[in-house]
Amino acid sequence: MAPTVTVWNEFVHEREDDAVADLYPDGIHGTIADALADRGFETATATLQEPEHGLTEAVLAETDVLVWWSHIAQDEVEDAVAERVADAVRSGMGLIVLHSAVLSKVFRSLLGTTGTLKWREADERERLWVTEPTHPIADGIDECIELEPTEMYGEPFDVPTPDSVVFTSWFEGGEVFRSGCCWQRGRGKIFFFRPGHETHPIYHDDEIQQVLANAAEWATTPGERELPTLENVEPREKIGDDD
Amino acid sequence: MAPTVTVWNEFVHEREDDAVADLYPDGIHGTIADALADRGFETATATLQEPEHGLTEAVLAETDVLVWWSHIAQDEVEDAVAERVADAVRSGMGLIVLHSAVLSKVFRSLLGTTGTLKWREADERERLWVTEPTHPIADGIDECIELEPTEMYGEPFDVPTPDSVVFTSWFEGGEVFRSGCCWQRGRGKIFFFRPGHETHPIYHDDEIQQVLANAAEWATTPGERELPTLENVEPREKIGDDD
Amino acid sequence: MAPTVTVWNEFVHEREDDAVADLYPDGIHGTIADALADRGFETATATLQEPEHGLTEAVLAETDVLVWWSHIAQDEVEDAVAERVADAVRSGMGLIVLHSAVLSKVFRSLLGTTGTLKWREADERERLWVTEPTHPIADGIDECIELEPTEMYGEPFDVPTPDSVVFTSWFEGGEVFRSGCCWQRGRGKIFFFRPGHETHPIYHDDEIQQVLANAAEWATTPGERELPTLENVEPREKIGDDD
Amino acid sequence: MAPTVTVWNEFVHEREDDAVADLYPDGIHGTIADALADRGFETATATLQEPEHGLTEAVLAETDVLVWWSHIAQDEVEDAVAERVADAVRSGMGLIVLHSAVLSKVFRSLLGTTGTLKWREADERERLWVTEPTHPIADGIDECIELEPTEMYGEPFDVPTPDSVVFTSWFEGGEVFRSGCCWQRGRGKIFFFRPGHETHPIYHDDEIQQVLANAAEWATTPGERELPTLENVEPREKIGDDD
Repeated sequence: MAPTVTVWNEFVHEREDDAVADLYPDGIHGTIADALADRGFETATATLQEPEHGLTEAVLAETDVLVWWSHIAQDEVEDAVAERVADAVRSGMGLIVLHSAVLSKVFRSLLGTTGTLKWREADERERLWVTEPTHPIADGIDECIELEPTEMYGEPFDVPTPDSVVFTSWFEGGEVFRSGCCWQRGRGKIFFFRPGHETHPIYHDDEIQQVLANAAEWATTPGERELPTLENVEPREKIGDDD
Repeated sequence: MAPTVTVWNEFVHEREDDAVADLYPDGIHGTIADALADRGFETATATLQEPEHGLTEAVLAETDVLVWWSHIAQDEVEDAVAERVADAVRSGMGLIVLHSAVLSKVFRSLLGTTGTLKWREADERERLWVTEPTHPIADGIDECIELEPTEMYGEPFDVPTPDSVVFTSWFEGGEVFRSGCCWQRGRGKIFFFRPGHETHPIYHDDEIQQVLANAAEWATTPGERELPTLENVEPREKIGDDD
Repeated sequence: MAPTVTVWNEFVHEREDDAVADLYPDGIHGTIADALADRGFETATATLQEPEHGLTEAVLAETDVLVWWSHIAQDEVEDAVAERVADAVRSGMGLIVLHSAVLSKVFRSLLGTTGTLKWREADERERLWVTEPTHPIADGIDECIELEPTEMYGEPFDVPTPDSVVFTSWFEGGEVFRSGCCWQRGRGKIFFFRPGHETHPIYHDDEIQQVLANAAEWATTPGERELPTLENVEPREKIGDDD
Repeated sequence: MAPTVTVWNEFVHEREDDAVADLYPDGIHGTIADALADRGFETATATLQEPEHGLTEAVLAETDVLVWWSHIAQDEVEDAVAERVADAVRSGMGLIVLHSAVLSKVFRSLLGTTGTLKWREADERERLWVTEPTHPIADGIDECIELEPTEMYGEPFDVPTPDSVVFTSWFEGGEVFRSGCCWQRGRGKIFFFRPGHETHPIYHDDEIQQVLANAAEWATTPGERELPTLENVEPREKIGDDD
């Protein structure tokens, strides 16, 4: 059975800025969900404006992988919902964190760092080099993905050393960035993918959609969803007799 | 100049349980602070009962490495103080997390996982094998440290894969555990060290004290204390002319 | 299509020692190949005694994953064949290294370390604890695998820090060991699995066979087999005009 | 006592090419050794042309850290000497591998991979961004080092995932590269540092010299030099009585 991906979006820019609405008439979430549905996933969407931001326990329980886009409304996400999502990841739900969502409550809670970085909006060229060619998230991608125009993110990127750095970006203005990074938290897998400013049509790009589909496949953890717990156990061996 | 180590203790067992008070008449914090002072560190102590748990901004600013012991009062630590401590670590303060403090707010906030594990109180023998012999935290320690009696901690230990596993424990009752683990968060270094139940005289042990001193040295990050921040930057190269 | 697994064995003990021959009448390679065939893999075998040890370029080209067992005849493996195998791994062939093959030329060439360890033959109990529960190699395995009797391997184990430590062993005699370790070299994946002394019926054990099958699945790298090479490339950007 | 650094150079370009000789009249080794001596290290040099390439057991035994530069004469290094050097690293000698020495026998033997990469000679600008700001090798270095002109190295770089990536390079022509990488092999530490083509005055650069000094300090492993060995051990616990 295909994994179920829920695409979450704060959905603010698209409703307030015509240029963004023109690029993403159904919201960034709509574009990504369609792209993943086309590639064989079960999909759903949820947004900030819905009750509990559309991320009830029931929704999370049905979700194999959550895609998360947020930018100017990070603080409007309720703490309780952010922790519910983080706990779902710790229990085995996959998480794909996009672009400015490095500053989201969920990502910070799971990574333990600030997620801060350098940035610049100068409509420059970016080249995402594949730095781990056999990683499943790079499957079908050539040696690099070229994007233009993009917002720039630069190092240092305040995250724990990733388990894998699948993509490293080159920017026209002179910087580099770890743009595709993997971590594990509890039973759940996390992929951060840098591209995606709301004023650029990046999520309509076929290679970007391919990476998202690869990442959704990779981030799916089979088996029951289970938050690790303390467990008091009996000894396996006799204690105390041969001292 | 010697690093300044502040030893923090919830300081509950010692005041409520005569057996613990007999083992640690000045509190676990007192014993550890004395051991570190004997080994050349500047030391201070702080406890849960003090205003702001003794962990004001001023105290943290003077602290190179914080040692943290907590067990039954994890929930009584104020969220604001826990986040202040975690931010100090992200800014470059070292942190040594002892024993049951795997379940502390500070450790969970920095690691992003539950810190849960298997456990058993059966007064059994433990052997901490050095699994990274050239790590500075193992300096001067033989191939293993033997302790008895100890509380058991067993795998799976719900933490992100450590950067280094300096010690791996064998338990008489049949389990293993990653008992000495290193992580980095932001500019700060974290060392978790398993030994230390309040009913055992473990912090009086010379080898244990040596490991704590090694860890305090290792966890000291020189240079200014700085929380990583977002930074908007100018391009280093001309953008847009050779497309 | 099912991956093709070639099981290589030095095949010396079984021909010289009746006790071993009784345990493994078709050789250790025969037992393992049968177990993998039962689990759906295409299988082949090869041994030291064959021309080029049965590991011609043609055989390696057809092999998705090579299982390697060696013990007393490590030095009899021709250097050229060992390097051919190591190059096949660098090109994308998976490798499963069993037990005493930590001292094989192939493993040492790929890891860059001595592979040395502590050891003891005392017919003791071993418990392999799953220390990375969501790793695909642990799929279907309970919290630990118990084996008895086994040969003991103890730390320090002279290998580069593994990418994953799927199993950590407890031994009755008091030691611990990283018994299931993953590394990547070039395009190829490597899994070391500790159990397996020739005088114990360990490869007949169902859980051990399950781990081997999981590992063979995990170690299969899809796509063309390609040894990374130097490549002289043209610039993507104009050089030298905007200095 | 200051660590002793031996700087090894194949010393071919400087003797055959006037332009290189003008840049490095005492050889690349001479320039680097002088820079390290100025920064307080004991230094020595050795070259390909000396008996045993100047790397006798006696020389290696006195060397805390070996700096290695090689390019067109990689194959002229005797296998036995290359393995002697690699064994010294496994025993605890530090190793700093420069530029094209990624293809040296020593580096390949220790890493287990081909060390291959993309490259281009186009006299372009390079910017080495510090991607691990608190690493001791980056001490005193600003957010990046800018070099011009340089030879380009591009990803994928065929090495095992480094323990630390201290520097990541941006190149004017459009590529990125992991230019400062750390690994451990046995008791020894390895640092690869990318800058350094023989036709560029890069080793005269003050920041480059500072990185080399930081790396020499970091790569020094205190304690006796010891190659890990197999060890047959007695049990710590009684075996077989409580089954």
